[in-house]
Amino acid sequence: MPRYALRVEYDGQPFSGWQRQADHPSVQGAIEAALARLEPDVPSIAAAGRTDAGVHATGQVAQCDMARDWDPFRLSEALNYHLKPAPVAITACAPVPEDWHARFSATGRQYLFRIITRRAPLVHEAGKVWQVKQPLDAAAMQEAARHLIGRHDFTSFRATQCQAASPVKTLDRLDVEALPREDGGQEIRLHVAARSFLHNQVRSFAGTLERVGAGAWQPERVAEALAARDRAACGPVAPPEGLYLTRVTYPEDPFATQPGP
Amino acid sequence: MPRYALRVEYDGQPFSGWQRQADHPSVQGAIEAALARLEPDVPSIAAAGRTDAGVHATGQVAQCDMARDWDPFRLSEALNYHLKPAPVAITACAPVPEDWHARFSATGRQYLFRIITRRAPLVHEAGKVWQVKQPLDAAAMQEAARHLIGRHDFTSFRATQCQAASPVKTLDRLDVEALPREDGGQEIRLHVAARSFLHNQVRSFAGTLERVGAGAWQPERVAEALAARDRAACGPVAPPEGLYLTRVTYPEDPFATQPGP
Repeated sequence: MPRYALRVEYDGQPFSGWQRQADHPSVQGAIEAALARLEPDVPSIAAAGRTDAGVHATGQVAQCDMARDWDPFRLSEALNYHLKPAPVAITACAPVPEDWHARFSATGRQYLFRIITRRAPLVHEAGKVWQVKQPLDAAAMQEAARHLIGRHDFTSFRATQCQAASPVKTLDRLDVEALPREDGGQEIRLHVAARSFLHNQVRSFAGTLERVGAGAWQPERVAEALAARDRAACGPVAPPEGLYLTRVTYPEDPFATQPGP
Repeated sequence: MPRYALRVEYDGQPFSGWQRQADHPSVQGAIEAALARLEPDVPSIAAAGRTDAGVHATGQVAQCDMARDWDPFRLSEALNYHLKPAPVAITACAPVPEDWHARFSATGRQYLFRIITRRAPLVHEAGKVWQVKQPLDAAAMQEAARHLIGRHDFTSFRATQCQAASPVKTLDRLDVEALPREDGGQEIRLHVAARSFLHNQVRSFAGTLERVGAGAWQPERVAEALAARDRAACGPVAPPEGLYLTRVTYPEDPFATQPGP
């Protein structure tokens, strides 16, 4: 069966997460329903990251196996047609070898976590960012973030239900970007990259760094929390609406030669 | 009666526009309904720009007259409480003299028009930008925009129902900014500023410049359209969802000494 890689964008708000569930809308379910309009017996699809309820994506990557050969551009157009009005779009599509796997072939994942600080309710970004009502010290957050870079046992930043075989991961990037806003508040963007992540790891980083930005934690306390290897040492887990899966990397970019739709 | 200036942010999608109407939701109506929860007989409010249906704002300015003195921060907090769940927020509030007027005291208006070029349906920006499916040449658009700067008779870029006394306006700024997107498309932002505008003027600019960016019009044709002083010479009027009223200026910034809520 010819296999295709799909780059997928979605708004996590109406979904119980990536993974198909019997009684709840899911991103996987929405895409599989669109595929079922194209061919009768499309197998289950797989994705690089099984995002939680409310988490967004701009660069999720999934794979699908089709019975017949499709022009990749026509496949993406047909899927986008049938996906409407769900807030899910296929933004690139490319043929891949049958032994290529969206999840197991991936060599890196990049996430963005967006925080907006202001007191008044958000209008244009509601549901798309974590709103924090007090100002945050981005420099202190960046100082704290440095303690997390590299290869560590991240038990403190791992959900109790995490199914990963090992809590040891290598964090390649955790940058804190501060952008001023015209309303006097600021947007803080956490740029995070690793080969793979533990369950809730990025949201645990975001919630912990927020405590540092608010002045409730000294930056060094993040190093202590990491060394504790104890879930109780972590700060609060940030809400899902600020989190975006932005990019998945592979040894060769499957979409490099395909014009984006 | 003490008068207050309000800086207002809203998503235009659910509204028939700024102006109160009997049977349709409006931004003015939403704010007046919230004011009515605070005092029994608040007079009608006025705004610097009466935006059309679907047009957004990040920096609209309105005024309200209250029967009693309010702490401006408390007034904004109380309004935001009663505005929920409407996508309208008061982002600043300040006392102003009784002869200050949100519309007639204004000395400048700034608008942003957002265009995103890509083929796949938009997810995160749906309803917030004008989606154009083909690439646009931003340099050609900037070249065309230069013809519009300055004092001109803008009859060609004016809605037939425009009620302004004169079609002569001075356009202070029309800049074309092109931002690359990770999905391979681009966002084009038109930054527009003038003392005041004709009805549909910014959307007429955006629709006309899009024709230039798409290659359907040479940049010089915009100069000819301006000189024609004929509505028929204008390009198509762009849809409202790309337009944001971002800032209103006054001889003295009423919010300068007030911390934003």
